[in-house]
Amino acid sequence: MSLLVVGSVAYDALESPYGKVERTLGGAATYFSISASFFTHVNLVAIVGDDFHPQDEAIFKARSIDIEGLERAEGKCFFWAGRYSENLNERVTLVTDLNVFAAFKPRLPESYRKSKFVFLANIAPDLQRDVLHQVKGRPKLVAMDTMNYWIERTNEELRETLRHVDILMINDSETRQLSNEHNLLRAAKHIFKMGPSTLVIKRGEYGALLVDKNGVFCVPAFPLEEPHDPTGAGDSFAGGFIGYLAGRGITPSHGGIDISELRRAVIYGSVMGSFCCENFGVDRFRTLTREEIEGRYHEFKACTAF
Amino acid sequence: MSLLVVGSVAYDALESPYGKVERTLGGAATYFSISASFFTHVNLVAIVGDDFHPQDEAIFKARSIDIEGLERAEGKCFFWAGRYSENLNERVTLVTDLNVFAAFKPRLPESYRKSKFVFLANIAPDLQRDVLHQVKGRPKLVAMDTMNYWIERTNEELRETLRHVDILMINDSETRQLSNEHNLLRAAKHIFKMGPSTLVIKRGEYGALLVDKNGVFCVPAFPLEEPHDPTGAGDSFAGGFIGYLAGRGITPSHGGIDISELRRAVIYGSVMGSFCCENFGVDRFRTLTREEIEGRYHEFKACTAF
Repeated sequence: MSLLVVGSVAYDALESPYGKVERTLGGAATYFSISASFFTHVNLVAIVGDDFHPQDEAIFKARSIDIEGLERAEGKCFFWAGRYSENLNERVTLVTDLNVFAAFKPRLPESYRKSKFVFLANIAPDLQRDVLHQVKGRPKLVAMDTMNYWIERTNEELRETLRHVDILMINDSETRQLSNEHNLLRAAKHIFKMGPSTLVIKRGEYGALLVDKNGVFCVPAFPLEEPHDPTGAGDSFAGGFIGYLAGRGITPSHGGIDISELRRAVIYGSVMGSFCCENFGVDRFRTLTREEIEGRYHEFKACTAF
Repeated sequence: MSLLVVGSVAYDALESPYGKVERTLGGAATYFSISASFFTHVNLVAIVGDDFHPQDEAIFKARSIDIEGLERAEGKCFFWAGRYSENLNERVTLVTDLNVFAAFKPRLPESYRKSKFVFLANIAPDLQRDVLHQVKGRPKLVAMDTMNYWIERTNEELRETLRHVDILMINDSETRQLSNEHNLLRAAKHIFKMGPSTLVIKRGEYGALLVDKNGVFCVPAFPLEEPHDPTGAGDSFAGGFIGYLAGRGITPSHGGIDISELRRAVIYGSVMGSFCCENFGVDRFRTLTREEIEGRYHEFKACTAF
């Protein structure tokens, strides 16, 4: 089923011990939609400036990603520059230029309004809610991301958006900050009271936790010998996770979302996050095949089974 | 088969947000031997002072732990005091008094010298080697722990000891320090050249990795809602891991150690580490049953299977 994503499409400058790129396609909605497109059709809502290069449209067009909702505005694209430490574990932000993204007011093309699966990437919570309002009827599944900035600055707005969401996908420090609770299992219980029935906690090189009323699913990260660039890994994880559920048409029933399918979705998310790290920006996805994805899913099983 | 362990038996003063204990039985060999004793008979080699309380012998005697090798010396027991942060993730050492441990020269009673499984807990590498020399013939399986102090101060001695060891069990920062390599998979390859054929990397709340020539086994930590005190969790992990192998008589063959058994051993190690955190010192082990261990092994499977 069709999956709607709203978020950023950007240009990034990246430096890691493995190399340097001056300007490469990035942004949460970019990573999410490309990753999800390996599993389902994606409707992309985002904004770019007049410096957006037609060549960068190609990766969306080559995949099953509708860009009718990619608004063109006067000005420049969102630009982010970051540098990773020797071990890729820490990064410093060198530049954040919001540019056209600062005035982004997402508008859904008519053809997007029937989307049954919605992912609200990390943007202002009032804009996330506005996108939901534009969808006709209640989507079958709504998932979202957020970040410390919104938790701190627009907490009430965020709480209002959370009331309309099934799955929250954030990292461990965001989980702790939002719930004001260090222990992640106890934190999940607080968050369930805010609206979401499922919490996916992304832990980078340490894997992920999925918590719902059935309990917890723990998964380590796929071990990589040569990660090059972790930028976008979390959004690629989300794309694999929601993309898998949308592709299979898996929606919450009275008993919640099927637990086996949720677990498989977490593994596909982890697989897509791991591929993302293998090259700079979205480059690894340019050559990635569904066969490689299935292969890594089975490798994942092999290195965790007992 | 009989499992020999050499290491520290100590008294600890512990503070965590869950409470405070002034003086409780601790030390690596204590945690290791109690944990391992749920799986096999243990021969303990350590030293205590004249302040060692007969009541603290009881936990060893009540289990299958031989303390003929527990030397009594004039002076006081090794004493350690530490305080944990709010989230249990960081700790400060308040006191380290080596006391009788400073002059410890491990002597194996005759009855220990035929031990087929040996665990060299974290002590000076020359003492670890000296213990190995006292064992008659080459034990079937030798495992060891070490720490940053020995990696920095007695690197050559440590390298010599590593040449005689099958399994090295250390944490991730020790792995990186010993190999001078951040990536843990690449680090393992360096360490295999030093002697061990199997590396178990303990990652605390993030689980563990087992690396050998067959590849890697990744396991998350068992999720606990109310950990009270992580002291000794790594030694309890090692005790469950080696205790399981010794109890089953699993030794390296030409193809190495059976991979399925090694994986089960990692899970038993994780299970024992998780129980350890549930109460202060070794208190959780006083009431723990083999049925509870099996129960958690199956819970572990349930929360990681996909």
